[in-house]
Amino acid sequence: MKKQVSLALLGCGTVGGGVVQLLHQNAKYLAERVGAPLEVTRVLVRDPDKERVPELSRDRLTTDPDAVLGDPTIDVFVEVMGGEEPARDYVQRAIDSGRGVVTANKMLLALHGPALVDRAIARGVDLAFEGSVGGGIPVIRVLREALASDWVTSLRGIVNGTCNFVLTRMQKDGKSFDEALREAQAKGYAEADPTLDVDGHDAAHKLTVLAMLAFGARVDHAQVPTEGIRAIEAIDHAFASRFGYAIKHLAIGRDRGDAVELRVHPALVPVDQAIANVNGVLNAIALEGRALGPCLLSGRGAGDMPTAVSIVADVLDVARAKRNGAAGLMTRGIQLSERKVASLDDVETAYYLRFEVFDQPGVLARITGALGEARVSIQEMVQKGGGDASGAPVQVVMMTHIAKERDLRAALGALAGADFIARAPHVIRVVE
Amino acid sequence: MKKQVSLALLGCGTVGGGVVQLLHQNAKYLAERVGAPLEVTRVLVRDPDKERVPELSRDRLTTDPDAVLGDPTIDVFVEVMGGEEPARDYVQRAIDSGRGVVTANKMLLALHGPALVDRAIARGVDLAFEGSVGGGIPVIRVLREALASDWVTSLRGIVNGTCNFVLTRMQKDGKSFDEALREAQAKGYAEADPTLDVDGHDAAHKLTVLAMLAFGARVDHAQVPTEGIRAIEAIDHAFASRFGYAIKHLAIGRDRGDAVELRVHPALVPVDQAIANVNGVLNAIALEGRALGPCLLSGRGAGDMPTAVSIVADVLDVARAKRNGAAGLMTRGIQLSERKVASLDDVETAYYLRFEVFDQPGVLARITGALGEARVSIQEMVQKGGGDASGAPVQVVMMTHIAKERDLRAALGALAGADFIARAPHVIRVVE
Repeated sequence: MKKQVSLALLGCGTVGGGVVQLLHQNAKYLAERVGAPLEVTRVLVRDPDKERVPELSRDRLTTDPDAVLGDPTIDVFVEVMGGEEPARDYVQRAIDSGRGVVTANKMLLALHGPALVDRAIARGVDLAFEGSVGGGIPVIRVLREALASDWVTSLRGIVNGTCNFVLTRMQKDGKSFDEALREAQAKGYAEADPTLDVDGHDAAHKLTVLAMLAFGARVDHAQVPTEGIRAIEAIDHAFASRFGYAIKHLAIGRDRGDAVELRVHPALVPVDQAIANVNGVLNAIALEGRALGPCLLSGRGAGDMPTAVSIVADVLDVARAKRNGAAGLMTRGIQLSERKVASLDDVETAYYLRFEVFDQPGVLARITGALGEARVSIQEMVQKGGGDASGAPVQVVMMTHIAKERDLRAALGALAGADFIARAPHVIRVVE
Repeated sequence: MKKQVSLALLGCGTVGGGVVQLLHQNAKYLAERVGAPLEVTRVLVRDPDKERVPELSRDRLTTDPDAVLGDPTIDVFVEVMGGEEPARDYVQRAIDSGRGVVTANKMLLALHGPALVDRAIARGVDLAFEGSVGGGIPVIRVLREALASDWVTSLRGIVNGTCNFVLTRMQKDGKSFDEALREAQAKGYAEADPTLDVDGHDAAHKLTVLAMLAFGARVDHAQVPTEGIRAIEAIDHAFASRFGYAIKHLAIGRDRGDAVELRVHPALVPVDQAIANVNGVLNAIALEGRALGPCLLSGRGAGDMPTAVSIVADVLDVARAKRNGAAGLMTRGIQLSERKVASLDDVETAYYLRFEVFDQPGVLARITGALGEARVSIQEMVQKGGGDASGAPVQVVMMTHIAKERDLRAALGALAGADFIARAPHVIRVVE
């Protein structure tokens, strides 16, 4: 038997550098756990002259993918390049050649996760991806291992740190979306082009990965109804707070038997729930297990070191399994089947509705009438502004009881175009 | 190789019954993960005639410990009898005979954990105990596996569901301690003799187990400064809320390098922290990792099924390792060394102080003077009552800045016996 476990890094940006550092700092401990030392023997990079962490010997660097993927001495590949291609190609080749793979690439997994899992199972190797969701939060491990004997019925997650930072700044400091986003960008919490984050796509990728483990669901991530946070205004936070809620951007999953309900959107969360108090760039995932009951995991959802911690934990698992002749068992536990994603029309939830209306007699009756006709009943209502002669629109905010999304849309459709509606109503779902 | 992995249960109360049910319900999945079916072949019970879960064949039952412990075909022992003896004796014999052990017995681990871990490592077998802390919350697994490459610097936990239920009822509904405790007893959340829970001993046991994994600390649980919640009054909740805090019963650990700081006591927690909103019988553990940053895990801390979920996850790990010739690696990762428990005198924290004083001129000056002389500075103060001729004591509540416990005690010592002090002051530490 070889005296060491050989690792190859595909990519070596800041996360990769963190992995190299943690492997170095914890070498003795990891070697004891695996039963052999772990050694980074090859590192695929684009720019061999770029400065790297000092723990990395420069003679390991190469720009030639074939030199890395074709090296038969490598035991485990660590993909930290991100993006769809060539990551998919490399991961696939690594699997096909019978080696274990660790990746933190949520986009790759959302787009090709089930196919890669199938491939890994067929080839008897492990594909581990703790770092892909929730940074350092060990949610994948918990879903895979600790809940090995349980059934996850639902989950709710704050899985995008950018959205959570922006919403927290709006809520706590009354900032506008644009101000909060600029601050996030200045602090390095948001990209120059924040689309992937603030429009919810990153969260949808992560929800697709979570659904794979939580519900064994093989779903097309493009089918996940996805809304971002651009439409949320400071005034929505103020009203939410008045009703006892915080606005969070959530990834929601529920196993409904016939279908899985998956959706990503902002939501009002009661302020006395732990998840409502997960602020700033922190992430959180709340699970509900049939035997376990509720379980919340929270921590830094992104950042180089938390993600590196997750990757190294995966490397440990994959290397140990390989060393002990148990490769592939971990991944074989992921049992996938085609699942239908429930239509948003069938979702049942409560709603926060904010109407901007011109203050005319009978307006409230018209709105409540349209809602009532569609079987949407109102729990609480508040009006702000009006009573003067300015003619400026007033805010009418309603919290509904639980209703079908289809019925709510019908009611709003019936009101659309009415002369007293100053602006299309704001709709935010409520999570209890 | 044997065709199955044989399990023996030591004890079979409600948790044991839950384990049998989960093993039965998830037999196919577990067999795939382990690479062989899991079979409960022997069950040690006190009363063979008692009714058991229907999944358990009666022919497996025995009242003879030697018939179980001496059976060479058993691969893994599952200890679910609880208490110190004979659990310690049985677990020790199982380890000595080279078999893996799964236990959820926090008292056993707090009293003999390090010795049992030493024994398991020396014998090359696994000792797993996820169920011992936090019921279904996979905190042991997270400490052991996910943080394999990180260093835990501190932890704070709500680890006793009885205390949390009682404090929550007092906080939310203004109940007295006695009323809340009676309700907890009526609901089955507290024992007829609640001493172990409400006086903090159970939490101290769990903190000792956590310290073993988080800090590699071999400590005597009797050295952990431990306070319960009997002294908390409804009025303390009201004042805490006014200052923006909730009162929680916490187990606190911190690696200070020279010593580990371990303590169990009620504490004021800022109400916008997630852990302050972990209510009722829920438990939570907040970790701080050097690379990982903060991480919070929350869920049902007790209850038969959550604990059974944790035990079965452990059984899966231990059985798989045994099956794959990797027994003992998991436990070898627990590296213990003698650690000094820091004296409470050296703890630095902020304090909530409630004085009941007779409303005489100069009282405030005397109190603030004594505090100031001991270098304890006051951040905020509020007085309630007084100003009438009733002569009834008034409440003076102060929130201090961070101070040394020794200094605070000196100040309170200087005030003790003063004629204006109606009752010994209430001191609650503050956690930021």
